[in-house]
Amino acid sequence: MNAAIIALGSELLGTTKLDNNSLRITKELEKFGVSLIGKSTIGDDEESIEKNLEYWLTHAEIILLTGGLGPTTDDVTRSAVASALGKKLFLDTAIEKQLARRFSRMGRHMTEINRKQAMMIPGGQPLENGPGTAPGIRIKYKKTTIFLFPGVPREVQYMITTHLHPWLQEHTKMEKSKTVIHHAILKISCLPESEVEQLILPAYKEFGKEWITILGSPGEVTLRLKARGEESECQTRLTLMQQRLCELIGTPVFTTQDDESLEFVLGSLLKKHTKTIATAESCTGGLLAERLTRVPGSSDYFLGGHITYSDQSKVNFLGISHATIQKYGAVSKEIAMAMAKNIRLKYESDYGVGITGIAGPDGGSLTKPVGTVHICIVGSNKTLSRYEQRVFSGDRTRIRLQSAQWALEMLRQLLIKT
Amino acid sequence: MNAAIIALGSELLGTTKLDNNSLRITKELEKFGVSLIGKSTIGDDEESIEKNLEYWLTHAEIILLTGGLGPTTDDVTRSAVASALGKKLFLDTAIEKQLARRFSRMGRHMTEINRKQAMMIPGGQPLENGPGTAPGIRIKYKKTTIFLFPGVPREVQYMITTHLHPWLQEHTKMEKSKTVIHHAILKISCLPESEVEQLILPAYKEFGKEWITILGSPGEVTLRLKARGEESECQTRLTLMQQRLCELIGTPVFTTQDDESLEFVLGSLLKKHTKTIATAESCTGGLLAERLTRVPGSSDYFLGGHITYSDQSKVNFLGISHATIQKYGAVSKEIAMAMAKNIRLKYESDYGVGITGIAGPDGGSLTKPVGTVHICIVGSNKTLSRYEQRVFSGDRTRIRLQSAQWALEMLRQLLIKT
Repeated sequence: MNAAIIALGSELLGTTKLDNNSLRITKELEKFGVSLIGKSTIGDDEESIEKNLEYWLTHAEIILLTGGLGPTTDDVTRSAVASALGKKLFLDTAIEKQLARRFSRMGRHMTEINRKQAMMIPGGQPLENGPGTAPGIRIKYKKTTIFLFPGVPREVQYMITTHLHPWLQEHTKMEKSKTVIHHAILKISCLPESEVEQLILPAYKEFGKEWITILGSPGEVTLRLKARGEESECQTRLTLMQQRLCELIGTPVFTTQDDESLEFVLGSLLKKHTKTIATAESCTGGLLAERLTRVPGSSDYFLGGHITYSDQSKVNFLGISHATIQKYGAVSKEIAMAMAKNIRLKYESDYGVGITGIAGPDGGSLTKPVGTVHICIVGSNKTLSRYEQRVFSGDRTRIRLQSAQWALEMLRQLLIKT
Repeated sequence: MNAAIIALGSELLGTTKLDNNSLRITKELEKFGVSLIGKSTIGDDEESIEKNLEYWLTHAEIILLTGGLGPTTDDVTRSAVASALGKKLFLDTAIEKQLARRFSRMGRHMTEINRKQAMMIPGGQPLENGPGTAPGIRIKYKKTTIFLFPGVPREVQYMITTHLHPWLQEHTKMEKSKTVIHHAILKISCLPESEVEQLILPAYKEFGKEWITILGSPGEVTLRLKARGEESECQTRLTLMQQRLCELIGTPVFTTQDDESLEFVLGSLLKKHTKTIATAESCTGGLLAERLTRVPGSSDYFLGGHITYSDQSKVNFLGISHATIQKYGAVSKEIAMAMAKNIRLKYESDYGVGITGIAGPDGGSLTKPVGTVHICIVGSNKTLSRYEQRVFSGDRTRIRLQSAQWALEMLRQLLIKT
């Protein structure tokens, strides 16, 4: 079965609000294996709503509308839906009485305006609204079932639990089996999106490309896997996909858990090996240490760090000589190595990390363009050390993000190999 | 003129992500009085995209599509649009050459997959993409102008500024009425949303509540003002509103510019007064330094800092005695003051900042609950120093964010008073 969501309300066409209700509804649909094929957001205009509903009527088996059931003049959902279905609204006296009782319970007078909420579509089933006054409506039209829900988030939640859930339970049962949709995740660091795609081409063929979504962010790619079927079937399939993808991509896959960040995974490795770390940062300005310490309990392995932003601070606090800086330049392999080595000695940590680079927008040159970053990790001997020079693309923020990401990843790769 | 936005990507039909790009685009459209009549979100399915585009072609004069221009197989926007317009894609060799040059500049090999981004729709105008590889496309079909933008937020922003803005400027000029929608901003730090709301109640009455939107984030509140009418009318009204709100709220308003962060404003003040700063952080783990150095040119005033995460590092690198730590505890006024004082002396900076606290989730006690943070700023004398103890609410991330925000704000307030 498939579904579409239409969110109604001119405020959702402005510059600040998005249709959050659709996320809750989608969650419920996925539990029953119903796939969402699309969403619309339409303003409080009767004709636009009618047209958009007509569009989805030719594509979706379930259509869920939220919003526009209130008593004010911009609440036009009921009449728009009635028009689209070629029907005329009528006053449902039973609902009218309920509304009147509700108002008197609240010690309020029911105005003429409120009576609008008692208007029904012929053939429609009113859906009781616990926390609000506007009842919802469910109506069948040809092969499609249409739900009209209010727009207030807690009322939507009530409608989902009280009306949508049991309906889905009953109507998806009639489908062959308990079909559900499940998701799984793979996170990959420091590989460009296009390279990841190249690596996983065989998996596209084996599992079908429509079940794998690829999403990139600076220094990180997330693969979102989807499976549809019976509960146990889904799990088996997702595990199989994960295994195959891990095999194709290799060590850059750092987790298959949605809530695990690279710094969390690295932290767990440091704990496992009972190793400690200290950082010396220049261009990242503290970002590496900040990421490491985002993880609760990071004091077990992160001892501290220096942000040696100026040349003078590299001299004063890391014991690097002015002559060395003069000779190689502050952004160089030699300085990155000296930073890593000296911060390790100062902190008496197992690993020291040094980062120096040009985050821009100024400070670049022909030989050292903006984005040039030297990253060095020093352990107790050469096989426990790593060095990389990169030229990252993007703006200042992106260059800094990638620099910290690379440093974390270099240390992770080093630890899984020891 | 009216417009519709189609966001493409199966990840936008899941349970976590919404189409944030549409908010930026809407903002630009509003500047030119273009009204958004609807939005769609469609998965990476060629036929669905084609059908949805056909739908909007009968309703909108401008259609903006975002996403699906990447090199991977689930990027099907180009071919879907071509199909909807009854056209066939061709390989644009000029774009192909540009892409190849771009890849070689980055020292990367252009794969066969990347060539897909050089496919064009006949009659389309390629739109250069500064920060990304996928060029956009603008194409006219009957009375409608269609824009194909990538989906990565910073690339969308580039497309808006570089391509959409000038096009709207040219094409809305021809329309008679000059009704525009304009926005203005006020950013306020370290006041709770409810307190801001209380302060601005008179402005709600004077200007109308519907023109002022209040948005809160940890340690910061943004007021978004809106005005509708002729260009000059809008500006006058917004200036009036801004002035009145600044008057009502006072010094916590740190900027009226959308693109100015608190660290940027503070940086400008430090530059203006030719003052320098150094930081000593414990619970924030580098976040304060990281925020200060987000600002290009921050090396003019930020000299560096120590992240003294362990007790031992406070002893070794800040010259605080074990006895002092024992006596007051690492999270105390005395330690925060010693951190600020000593980092200032070590760096010979005008100001030193010390932060120590309990970010949680563990480490709290009855007398020092999670969220307890001591922040101290030390200048050359007592009137140039500040100290605050706070108990921030929220999780680890929120506590750290608020701590850094408070430190920045305390120094800003100190600088505007000197």
